[in-house]
Amino acid sequence: MLGLLAPTDARWASVALADLDAVLRDHAHCEMKAASHALSLAARHPDDLALVRKLVALAQEELAHYDQVLGLLASRGIALGPPPVDEYAAALHAAVAKRQGSGGSIAPKARGLVDRLLVSALIEARSCERFKLLADAMGEHHELFRFYSELFAAEARHHRDLVDLARGVADGAAEGGTLLVTERLAELAALEAEIVRARATAPDRATIHG
Amino acid sequence: MLGLLAPTDARWASVALADLDAVLRDHAHCEMKAASHALSLAARHPDDLALVRKLVALAQEELAHYDQVLGLLASRGIALGPPPVDEYAAALHAAVAKRQGSGGSIAPKARGLVDRLLVSALIEARSCERFKLLADAMGEHHELFRFYSELFAAEARHHRDLVDLARGVADGAAEGGTLLVTERLAELAALEAEIVRARATAPDRATIHG
Repeated sequence: MLGLLAPTDARWASVALADLDAVLRDHAHCEMKAASHALSLAARHPDDLALVRKLVALAQEELAHYDQVLGLLASRGIALGPPPVDEYAAALHAAVAKRQGSGGSIAPKARGLVDRLLVSALIEARSCERFKLLADAMGEHHELFRFYSELFAAEARHHRDLVDLARGVADGAAEGGTLLVTERLAELAALEAEIVRARATAPDRATIHG
Repeated sequence: MLGLLAPTDARWASVALADLDAVLRDHAHCEMKAASHALSLAARHPDDLALVRKLVALAQEELAHYDQVLGLLASRGIALGPPPVDEYAAALHAAVAKRQGSGGSIAPKARGLVDRLLVSALIEARSCERFKLLADAMGEHHELFRFYSELFAAEARHHRDLVDLARGVADGAAEGGTLLVTERLAELAALEAEIVRARATAPDRATIHG
């Protein structure tokens, strides 16, 4: 799905479904982190007004989702609490920082931006896959089925938007930029899959990327 | 206006009007900073779900304004560029950090939050005053008159919302919290006025808080 190279362990959905409070808490933090990350990328690239506006629009949508999840927490009397450690995202960012791609003729600043956009795109893809698994495990009569089905579609769209933004940046930075993005996305998807496989031995956490 | 203790130097509006490109660029960054600050406060207080939701709603509105200003920049062919140094905000944050109020019986964490909310409230008040001066200097036939008149009203509302949030935090943290907020707001407004007066000898910058 969406270029992901390792499917989520089949046991994950039942672990998540058994502790929906924890899933909702973690999910809320994921939306906030996605919004903050989009805004920090926007703030770092004030030279590209079109990119900034698209990232701000993305952040606004993430914040709207964040507020939707917070509304669910409030109506269920669940405390938000501090964010759980997101080992998946930490491992992904660390792996990308370690294995810098050659990036062909793209300047380092644009290459870093492309990588950050593609990492965000992969995280959206993984959230998308998990929301789909969760909705399927819930079944259509579950009170949160529609919510997770709608978010599943939104995450897929964010994935595509972020890859498109990366292509735009790479195209503006070097000839053949689009091709470089396709190659880099495959490399990063392989890294992401390694991380997911390494964690699949312990699918015991009711978190979005647990 | 809104409890501000020093009016802006009368020359500011003509300096600003003479370089609206610079004002718009600076204004854009101010909206982004206000959004980021609200989100960082929200992220630091996940224990107070109602506060988080109000801060997120504030951030969403700041981002909508940010995008409006970016739209004006785009339509005028103005580059956003990196944020100018905001000496006013830096001086205000530094002064507040240096002169910690006693805060009565409020615990340090809540006291820090109250201060941050009140500093944000004062920055909104100053923006509000400046937008009003700018709109008045423009006159109602100027293409940006309506824009700055609407934002003037929004900033006044943000000022009140932030003071209300501070009152809510202080009330939850100590008996007589509301009174403490009134006292602290007066102290911080005096600090803000000192900074504005010190800068009034050189109203030569076309920035929102220049």
